[in-house]
Parts: sequence; structure tokens; C-alpha cells
Amino acid sequence: AQRILSGNYGKAVTVGAYGEITYNQQEAQNGELDVQRLVLLFGYKFNDKTQFVTEVEFEHVEEVYVEQAFVNYAIAPNMSLRGGLMLVPMGIVNEFHEPTTFNGVERPATDNVIIPTTWREIGVGVTGRFNDLSLGYQAYVFNGFKSTTSDGEGGLSGFLKGSNGLRGGRQKAIKSTVDSPTLSVKLDYYGLPGLRLGLAGYTGKTQAEDDIEELDGANIGVSMLGLDARYAYQRFTARGQFIYASLSDTEAYNTATGKDLGSALQGWYLEGAYNLLPQEKQQRLFAFLRYEQYDTHADTAGTLTRDDAYNRTDITTGLSYHIAPGVVLKGDYQFRDNALSGDNVDDRLNFGIGVWF
Amino acid sequence: AQRILSGNYGKAVTVGAYGEITYNQQEAQNGELDVQRLVLLFGYKFNDKTQFVTEVEFEHVEEVYVEQAFVNYAIAPNMSLRGGLMLVPMGIVNEFHEPTTFNGVERPATDNVIIPTTWREIGVGVTGRFNDLSLGYQAYVFNGFKSTTSDGEGGLSGFLKGSNGLRGGRQKAIKSTVDSPTLSVKLDYYGLPGLRLGLAGYTGKTQAEDDIEELDGANIGVSMLGLDARYAYQRFTARGQFIYASLSDTEAYNTATGKDLGSALQGWYLEGAYNLLPQEKQQRLFAFLRYEQYDTHADTAGTLTRDDAYNRTDITTGLSYHIAPGVVLKGDYQFRDNALSGDNVDDRLNFGIGVWF
Amino acid sequence: AQRILSGNYGKAVTVGAYGEITYNQQEAQNGELDVQRLVLLFGYKFNDKTQFVTEVEFEHVEEVYVEQAFVNYAIAPNMSLRGGLMLVPMGIVNEFHEPTTFNGVERPATDNVIIPTTWREIGVGVTGRFNDLSLGYQAYVFNGFKSTTSDGEGGLSGFLKGSNGLRGGRQKAIKSTVDSPTLSVKLDYYGLPGLRLGLAGYTGKTQAEDDIEELDGANIGVSMLGLDARYAYQRFTARGQFIYASLSDTEAYNTATGKDLGSALQGWYLEGAYNLLPQEKQQRLFAFLRYEQYDTHADTAGTLTRDDAYNRTDITTGLSYHIAPGVVLKGDYQFRDNALSGDNVDDRLNFGIGVWF
Repeated sequence: AQRILSGNYGKAVTVGAYGEITYNQQEAQNGELDVQRLVLLFGYKFNDKTQFVTEVEFEHVEEVYVEQAFVNYAIAPNMSLRGGLMLVPMGIVNEFHEPTTFNGVERPATDNVIIPTTWREIGVGVTGRFNDLSLGYQAYVFNGFKSTTSDGEGGLSGFLKGSNGLRGGRQKAIKSTVDSPTLSVKLDYYGLPGLRLGLAGYTGKTQAEDDIEELDGANIGVSMLGLDARYAYQRFTARGQFIYASLSDTEAYNTATGKDLGSALQGWYLEGAYNLLPQEKQQRLFAFLRYEQYDTHADTAGTLTRDDAYNRTDITTGLSYHIAPGVVLKGDYQFRDNALSGDNVDDRLNFGIGVWF
Repeated sequence: AQRILSGNYGKAVTVGAYGEITYNQQEAQNGELDVQRLVLLFGYKFNDKTQFVTEVEFEHVEEVYVEQAFVNYAIAPNMSLRGGLMLVPMGIVNEFHEPTTFNGVERPATDNVIIPTTWREIGVGVTGRFNDLSLGYQAYVFNGFKSTTSDGEGGLSGFLKGSNGLRGGRQKAIKSTVDSPTLSVKLDYYGLPGLRLGLAGYTGKTQAEDDIEELDGANIGVSMLGLDARYAYQRFTARGQFIYASLSDTEAYNTATGKDLGSALQGWYLEGAYNLLPQEKQQRLFAFLRYEQYDTHADTAGTLTRDDAYNRTDITTGLSYHIAPGVVLKGDYQFRDNALSGDNVDDRLNFGIGVWF
Repeated sequence: AQRILSGNYGKAVTVGAYGEITYNQQEAQNGELDVQRLVLLFGYKFNDKTQFVTEVEFEHVEEVYVEQAFVNYAIAPNMSLRGGLMLVPMGIVNEFHEPTTFNGVERPATDNVIIPTTWREIGVGVTGRFNDLSLGYQAYVFNGFKSTTSDGEGGLSGFLKGSNGLRGGRQKAIKSTVDSPTLSVKLDYYGLPGLRLGLAGYTGKTQAEDDIEELDGANIGVSMLGLDARYAYQRFTARGQFIYASLSDTEAYNTATGKDLGSALQGWYLEGAYNLLPQEKQQRLFAFLRYEQYDTHADTAGTLTRDDAYNRTDITTGLSYHIAPGVVLKGDYQFRDNALSGDNVDDRLNFGIGVWF
């Protein structure tokens, strides 16, 4: 406050935001309108080497989360140390989730139930690029998921389940328990014109609190591999992603908690888009088609049988109309199905307004 | 985050805020001190045509709401399309609710129980002005109120009631249900010097969820009409407003929910203010008097009898001391009564600090 | 919104923030990682005389509080009036709590259980300095603590307790009850080079709601005295603080509520630090040692016996590495004990990242 009243406002401050207002309507049902998220971004450049970035997210109008808060410290021209609350680099959307950067009102389902986007934890690590090799790299030690807590009666209550895998286990830096470190690495190759390839890995165990860490099934192991590609050529763009996660000790976990967590999660998608407007226009109007396949019961351990309802296929097609750089209007239709016989998943119509600055 | 670390902070960003710190003391009782609201505003101008505005509100220190979030897109010099979470244009204060824009610590009661200020929903529409006619216009399709939800036992639980009309039915864009569109229009005429006249209309039905929409009393109809005027001449200012809402199907609603919602709501006020300081001063000190009459049981349907306790008269008089443009200190006393015999409503003393930038 | 869309963003706006990401590990237990707090600051200079400052705090990722919101109005070159939600000036850290301003990952315990940092309420007062005397002053009337509320059965439920004194009684400007004013004064003497001395006093009663204010034990009296000193000479810095609070009517309070609130609270600490890096470097690396003694049962009234578990000694030693002005990495170890025989308090290892801009 003392500082403020002297009025030293500098150019070192960055203020930004992104947001998504969405309309979702499943077949023959009422629609839902929601300010799904509004995220404020504040950054500061302390000096040439030292920067701080934070994002504060408001979800569904009235929930709040500090989503990112980290210090970036340059130790060499193409190498920085980072520490704080950061995004885990896995696939495309977990790191680049602003609505103007992807087609479709909703993020790909793989980036929801396989990669638990927005997946963030507190960690430290190094990031940079080898320009000669056209290679960017990130390597972090992160805090891990929490899979269980005490059920108050000497047993375990579980956060992970078959329908959405690891999603319920994110600690989100909220007074998070630390038991063992987990490792996250991503490499990005940008040596071919218009193409960007990513290879990501994550491995570690979940983090049980002191009172339960000795119980059978308290922790599971998580290993995740991700491949992604983005391509742009004139008015055509494409992207794809493949994610596979292997979970160990899920039999003991399921026995202890009564959950149905799979032992392997897998998802992939391919998407092509074409800009219907002339390239010299500032506005862009992409027509796109995305084929996505994902299964949170790609494999199961012990007596748990695979639930084909979790083996899903989504075909999404629609338009992304960028009325200005940073503002997009979206509309799409999702043909959704699973591996059970018959059409068991409601198709869905979506509209959205997205901004990013 | 990538973008931030490169430090591209531009002049296109707007940061603002408004806030109200209030002291309310009813006759012979302890007072209450509250940071009633602090609202942060962020805007961005993407290009000459395209802007985004959002307001994040913190109420009573610890509650948070995204209150506005919309894109404004100019399609002609005096015409813009708007979409997102917006204010419904009805009366004066729902749109212009910053504390430096009105006299009195608390907003007029009409703008609370007749118009459920801050009334906002997600919508799309058009806004602009016909300069030749000195006429501004707004026309939107908004999502509507939600009057009922399932009571879990096959019946209905109601959000609307006699004491404050539609207030409990605002969906506020929180995963809001959409069943049918509602329409909102406002015209503003500014052709006479110092005078601004407004005429607003709103009509539509409430939005019931799928599981109850067929039940008797699940939805009501809402039609609202508003007239408002603001006048300024030298050191004298005046404003007034008349609001009438007609609600249909309230008998079925009351029967199904056990509520006492009126079938008509009506309120009006007249206010005059005089600046006690010379006009050439930057500071202004307004003495004001407001007479207000409002009734959430202006009419009732079926067997429901009008409750005279809802037929209210407030006389508010006090001072608004603008110590700088954007900062106001307020103090007033409210003589409050209803149509029951005797003086049944406690009078109230109010003080406040308001800022807007 | 109207204003925003015209894009009048000025240099009068200040945007800032501070934050702390912490790791705490008690002996032989799992550690905890937390975004303990992220605080956004917005200020505006309306004109040469009039400014507004607000801070919005996000605690543990998902809680939100408006922590400060006040208007500062200069009535003379070295004298300002202030009103709004402000910090109570007592000791060093309640006013200067940004992580780059103090050594140690966690704030001194005296600034938690004796001074209930961050101690803020709504108030009005005057602040300024007498340059001839090298004397700064602050004098405010604040709203007070709330010690009790109705237990719903005609009795009292209490917010204050032996283990952390007044901490649970902060009203934080959340629809806070006002029964009687409390007074707060601080003087700061900066006449000797490198030294800054503070003397603070606070006195008043707690604020009971109307329905219980006549009950025995509903209110207590609070008087607090604080002395603090900060010293800097070349690479050496030191600071110390002594706080004593006398609480009256605690016997009746404890009888009515079943609590164990002490009648006197006392705490003090001394800390020395030495910058291990050459003074001409922008980076600084302080090694520090703090000895702290605090007792929330410094005295008790009536039949309540002093609990030696509340009579605590903390010795904290570690490093504060300021990698840039405004960014600090911290690590320390806390040897913690109480006056009971044996070593009953777990020692603790702490790491932290702190930023302030």
C-alpha cells in the first residue's frame, strides 16, 4: 500500500485474461448456458532474468482457483529455471487451453478424462530450447496426485474412478500432501516448416497422507506418455494427439476403496481444419472435423472387467469464427458413442464465445 | 503464459474498479459495517471493431461472481452486436450501479425488489444510437429466470416469493438452464438539453429444468415495463423511475410451491438533489430527497390476498459528498413505512464510502 | 462498461501483487505444498489529493477475501485522512507482510497468535508525519473484534480461545457488527540513521450482536501495546518486537462459553541477519537467526490455570535468497518448544517462494 500511494506504475506489469461462455444442448433436452471460465492473468518482469506469472481462474461464475503462480529465472539465453504452481506439459491443450487456440466449444475429451486438464501442481524444473536442434525442452519435479484419504473408520476413501481416471486426484496446490516426487518431461521439435511435434512423459506415485500411507491400496503408480503434432499449411491446419497412461497397483486400490479404476487409460484424436476465408483477411473462419477415441478402461487389473461404456468415440464437426485475433465464436455438433451395442451417448450441440488477450 | 513472459503489455488493456463500504444502522440496534462490494473491471480492445469487457464482483468480502463478460462488435458507426453475460437494461440503476452515479448509500428499493439489480444473464443482441433522432437503443435475447426446481419428492420447490418478487430467480449465468428465450429492449431519448428519458420492456417465461418442465406451476410468465428520467440543470439534478411487472400463472406457481408470489409488482420514485458547493468547484456536495413507493403485491392471483407489509414507502434524505470525481462519501436517513396500520418498519441510518475508476 | 469501451486507460491505475508458495514439513511427517496466498493490489489516483487502494487475497488457492479497501485523502502536505478497510498498525508484520520484507518462510508466531495478522477492520482516521521530529503517526477508530455469538439456546458461543487468543474474533469487514468504537494509534520514529522505532497501542471492547449484548461474558475488553524496531547497517540487519495484550472480563467470557482464553497475551522476538553477498550486488542472500518467545496464557483470570503448552519458544534459522528485488527463495528450520517438560512441539523444515511487485 505504501508503494501504491506513491503511484509507481510501470510497464513491467502485464494484465491479460481469457474466457469462455458456452451453450451445451444434449439431444432433446434443455440447453445450459454458463460462463464456464474467466481467467485473469498478471505478470511482472522484475529484471531481464526474473519474471513472475500468475493466473486466477473463476469457474462457473462463482468458484475461484489460483491456477498458475510461478517464477521464471533465466540462467542462460535459452535456459530458465522455474518454480511454483505450473501446468504439467502433456499433450497440447493442458498447456495451451485458451479458447482461441483450439477448435470446438469444448476441449477434446482426451484432454479431460485421460489428461486431467487443467493439470497443475507445484513443482520446480528447467525449460528452454536448443535452437540448433530446433528442440524445446521442459523437465520438472512436480507434486503428484492424491488417490486416497482416510474414510474415518480405518479404511480408505478413493478419489480416482473408472469414468474419469485421474481427474479427481489433482491436488491443485491446495494444502497438498507431499510423499514422493513425480517427474515430468516434454520435448518439442519444430524443425520442419509448419510442423510442431511433442513428446511428453510423466511418472511417479500418488501422495498419501501420513495416517494412511501404510495401508494397502493407499497409493498407485502413474506413468503417462503423450505424443502430439500440430501442422499448418496456408489455409489448412491439423493436429493430433495420442496419450497412454499405465496405472499400477489399481487392484489393491479398487479393493480398498470400492472404486473401478482402470489400469490403463488411452486416448487419441485427429483433427483437420480449413479456413474458409481468404488468407489475407484478419478474420478467419475454420471448418473442422475431429475424430476422437478414448477409453478409461483401456485395461483393468484383477477381477475388474472392462466397462465398454468407458470406451468412447466422439466425432465433432463445426465452425470456429475468429472475428478478430483473440475473439472466437464457435459452433459444433458432437456425434458421441461408446462400445456398448446401440447408441447410448446423447449427441450434443454446442455454441461458445471465447476471448484471449 | 508464453505470451506474458515476452512482456507485450499494450495500451489496449483497461483496468478499473468500483466499490462500496457501508454502515447501516436500524433504529435502536447495533450497526453493521460491510465491504458490500468490490468490483474489478478488465477490458480489452482487440481492434477498432472488437472489444471485451468483464467485471468480477467480490461481495461481502468473501463471495465472488463474474458479473459481466461480453464481446462488443461494431458492425456500423452507431451499431454494435453484443454477446455474453450482460446487464438487462431496465430502469437506471441496473445498468449504472456504480456508487458515484446515484444518491443514497443504498440503491433505491425499487431497484432491488422490483428490478432484481444486478440483473444479468447471458444473451445476444444489438445496441447503438440514431443520432438524428437523439435515440439510443438496445435489443437483446436473454436467458430468463428460473422459478422452480425439483423438491426431490416429485413436487416443486420455488425460488420466487412475495417479499422480493423475482430476485431469487436470477440464474446469473451459473450453469443456467435454457428453456425458452426472453426479450429485452430499451430506448433512451436524449434530445432535450439536460434530460435523458428511458423506456424499457422485458418479456418471457421462466426456465424450468427438463425433469419438472411439464409440472403445473413449473414456469411463470414475466412482462416488465420501465420508464426512467434523469435531469440536470446547473446545480440541480433530478431523476425518477416507474417500473411495473406483470406475472402470469402465479396461482399455479404458488399452489405448487407454497410461496406467496404476487401477480403484479410495481415501484416508482422521484428524487431531487442540489449541489451545495459552487459549480466551478471540482468537489460536489449534493443534498437530496427521494420519495419511493413500491409494492411486490401490487396485485395477487387466485386466493392469495395482498400483504400490506409488502406495500412500502421509503423517504430517504441525506448528503453525497464527492471529494473527487470518482470518490463519494454518503450519509442519509431513511424513513420507512408500509401500508399496515402503525409504524412497522424500522427507520435506518446509513453511511458509505464509494469509489469508481 | 460504457466508460471502458471508449478505452480511457490511464497511468493513474496501479496493479500489483504479492504471493507465497510454501513447503512445510514437520519432523518425520509428510510435507505440505500450498499456494498459501496470492494477493492482487489495485490502486487509483483520482487527483493529487485522493487515492484508493484495494487488495484482494486468494488463500490456499480457492478462498477469497477483500483484505484492504480504503480511500486516502491528503488534507495537508504531511497529513491524510483515511477511511475504509485498513490494516491495524501493530508491530511490523501486520502492516508489512509481503514475503520479501521479512526473513523466514512463515511469519513470526507473535504476528499470528498475539497480533492476529492480517488484522484488518473497517475504520477511519488520520496518518502523516512530522518531518522535523522524524516522526510518523497513525490514529484510527476501528471496528473491533467479535468475541461471541448466540449458541441458539439462550447462551453464548465463543470465537476466542487460549491457543490463539484474539485470532478467531476478527470480523474482517464481513457484515461486521458494530457496538462500540475501538482506538488504534501508532508512532514511528526514524530520526537515527538506519533505525526505525515503532510504538503502537490499541484499546476497546469486543462487539456483541443485539440479541446477546446484555448477557454476562458477551464482551471482553482488549488493550494491546506494541514496540518494534528495525535496524540496517551495511550488510547487517536486525529487527525486534514486543507485544503485550491485556484482556478484561475473560473470566465471565470463559464461564459463558466454555473457552480457555487467557487474560494476558505476550510475545517478543529478536532477529539478526547478514547478507552473505557483496553489497554492490543486486541479489542478496541473508543468513538469519530469530529467537521468539510467546505465550497466549501470559496470565489467566479466575480459576483458569495457565497452560504451559501455550508458553512457546521458537528458534528459527535459515536463508533468504533475493534473486531479484521482489523475488525471494527461502529456507529455514524451526526448533520449537514449549514450557512443558520434554520436547513436545515438532520441529519444522520450511521452504518458500515469495514475490512482490
